[in-house]
Amino acid sequence: MLKEDIQNRIDKNYNFKFNQNAQNLELYPYFNEVSTASSPVIKVNGANMLNFGSNNYLGLTTHEKVLSESIASLKKYGSGVTGSRLLNGTLDVHKKLENKIANFYNKEASLVFPTGYTTNLGLLSSLLTSEDIAIIDAQIHASVYDGLRQARCTIRSFKHNNIEDLEKTIMSCKIKPTVCVVEGLYSMFGDAGNIKAICGICEKYSITLIVDEAHSVGVLGNKGRGAAELQQVMDKVDVFTITFSKSLGSCGGAIVGPKKIIEFVKVNAKPFLFTAGNTPASLTSALTCLNLLDANPSFIKELHQKKDFLIALLKEKGITPLSKDGPIISLALGNDDQVITTWKKLMDKRVFCNPVLFPAVKKGKGLIRLSIMRTHTIEQLKLLVSSLESVIQSNTI
Amino acid sequence: MLKEDIQNRIDKNYNFKFNQNAQNLELYPYFNEVSTASSPVIKVNGANMLNFGSNNYLGLTTHEKVLSESIASLKKYGSGVTGSRLLNGTLDVHKKLENKIANFYNKEASLVFPTGYTTNLGLLSSLLTSEDIAIIDAQIHASVYDGLRQARCTIRSFKHNNIEDLEKTIMSCKIKPTVCVVEGLYSMFGDAGNIKAICGICEKYSITLIVDEAHSVGVLGNKGRGAAELQQVMDKVDVFTITFSKSLGSCGGAIVGPKKIIEFVKVNAKPFLFTAGNTPASLTSALTCLNLLDANPSFIKELHQKKDFLIALLKEKGITPLSKDGPIISLALGNDDQVITTWKKLMDKRVFCNPVLFPAVKKGKGLIRLSIMRTHTIEQLKLLVSSLESVIQSNTI
Repeated sequence: MLKEDIQNRIDKNYNFKFNQNAQNLELYPYFNEVSTASSPVIKVNGANMLNFGSNNYLGLTTHEKVLSESIASLKKYGSGVTGSRLLNGTLDVHKKLENKIANFYNKEASLVFPTGYTTNLGLLSSLLTSEDIAIIDAQIHASVYDGLRQARCTIRSFKHNNIEDLEKTIMSCKIKPTVCVVEGLYSMFGDAGNIKAICGICEKYSITLIVDEAHSVGVLGNKGRGAAELQQVMDKVDVFTITFSKSLGSCGGAIVGPKKIIEFVKVNAKPFLFTAGNTPASLTSALTCLNLLDANPSFIKELHQKKDFLIALLKEKGITPLSKDGPIISLALGNDDQVITTWKKLMDKRVFCNPVLFPAVKKGKGLIRLSIMRTHTIEQLKLLVSSLESVIQSNTI
Repeated sequence: MLKEDIQNRIDKNYNFKFNQNAQNLELYPYFNEVSTASSPVIKVNGANMLNFGSNNYLGLTTHEKVLSESIASLKKYGSGVTGSRLLNGTLDVHKKLENKIANFYNKEASLVFPTGYTTNLGLLSSLLTSEDIAIIDAQIHASVYDGLRQARCTIRSFKHNNIEDLEKTIMSCKIKPTVCVVEGLYSMFGDAGNIKAICGICEKYSITLIVDEAHSVGVLGNKGRGAAELQQVMDKVDVFTITFSKSLGSCGGAIVGPKKIIEFVKVNAKPFLFTAGNTPASLTSALTCLNLLDANPSFIKELHQKKDFLIALLKEKGITPLSKDGPIISLALGNDDQVITTWKKLMDKRVFCNPVLFPAVKKGKGLIRLSIMRTHTIEQLKLLVSSLESVIQSNTI
């Protein structure tokens, strides 16, 4: 039995009945059970569906080489390292992966974390203090926000991707901000960060710039290093963070930047020191995906061809996504009811995608978010559009 | 080039030269490179060594069934789920593992996280607020501390495992504390938490008790559920947290407790919502280890037999560990120099173990920490003791 204070708190803050009702009506869009690999066709809640809801942009999680190398890693190193990086959990694979990432980004050093969330948490909580000001884009990921809160620093946000507001925000600070944190590709609207202009501002005010390329690694730039590569300002970015749980087909993340910062974070970040090292297979999966990406820049082109084809097809039907920058195709739908209804109709047509509701977006600004994979076929993209078209028509009726 | 403020901060707070010197003299005990599985013999920095430095207590990371099931999982589900649990990253394997954990602990529900660190972070940061007081054991793990800090609650610690001081601390609080968080087995001294007595106190004051059985799952109790099982108070503990990165041979963690708390945390914990789901192989590794543990309670007996044998052998040589409760055998060494010297001599004798230095322990109270595995042979334990004996003798000379 719950203690009374905890019971009251939960009852006050969580509407079990509402969620249960939504689940009973099959209108609860979260925690759907997937029982296959994250391929263009997946099994969701027991039914085969077209998969437009994953971040497996390059489709590498089922790549033959990724599987064979990861299996070899499991056999050689076992299923887990059973210890922290500090004490006994640093494998030679960790170092190979860190070297590969540092070389790929043309930076001095890199540090691998077991999750993307703890990558941002570890970097920011160890580097900053309560005396610092951090400037963030209003659409920044929760992991950045939590890292800054853990550091107890002052957080000032500027209007999403708005350079004028960025400068205004910096100028309104009583002391010089220490860092500015932005993203290469934003996960809600799917638009690229205006990294080039932000670099200029950060240089002007001598502010350390951190760019989270979680969604853009493998997606933007000739080599797939992200928005800074695409905008030709890789040298102007002080520190990058990336994740392995999107194009790099695994779980984990990394910081890449100057050796001094990496060495400092390595012995000071509690989210790094007090966690076990990644499993051997997950390290090898990420390393193999990165090697594949490095050897096959054509993967990126293929992804963009699919995305451009889809956008052209949508345009023919009078549907315009919020952004054309990358594989996240967000459609403005309206209020939460409209979003959920649309999502449900698409599910009924065996199209799996992600609804974006308040508070992830402003009230009445809900989205349907479609994620494109390199491995989607033209036929699958056509099926998506015809499903979308009929659902949107039936919405109007 | 680093911006001046960051450069100054790092220079002021991190002694690169000191660390470099220690590394050059091979006196730097951290981040040793392991290039094999975490077996009783491992390769560290290129040399084969006896492994007394891992948390692989049951030795399951190389178990045939764990490997074969994890490989099958990789083949079926791919190398990663590429998304959050909320949106597209919940596999049927997540649910199987959650059901198994809930049944194993005889609790209503369970929630799986990608790391042990974020398990405690997620539970505590979502359940508590700035108006709460949390009572913790002075030796509590950093993940608990960080979770409470993220919740912004008031943290009050009591003397390690001291029931009188626990009650005194509770009575000194201006309002009733909301939770008390302790561990089943402490990682530094290797001693079990006095869970039975703590249950009594928490019941008396109606405080929700959370027990972190990270080091004790697979190790204490007839079925390996931890210190609460051993002390026959499983029903008195409100919530357990466990990790998969020790006896369960993987990476990740779980909360297990009342359905209401689990459901609340599931939709409120940012460290859960904003992170990708575990890799399929890591889930299957943990599930297989848990199934093996459940089917083979003899594993626990075997581990304790090895541990008891080692302690008896140490006693013959006049060496007394700080605790005999579990597989963490900590030896009091003295100041940091003495610890590092002993550690280095053991490394030279091809014995790998963990030094524990200030600030992990009080100044002058440094430890050498040995971790026993079920799969160590009697011969390996004898070798350890003879190495220890000669090193400690040479210390005295």
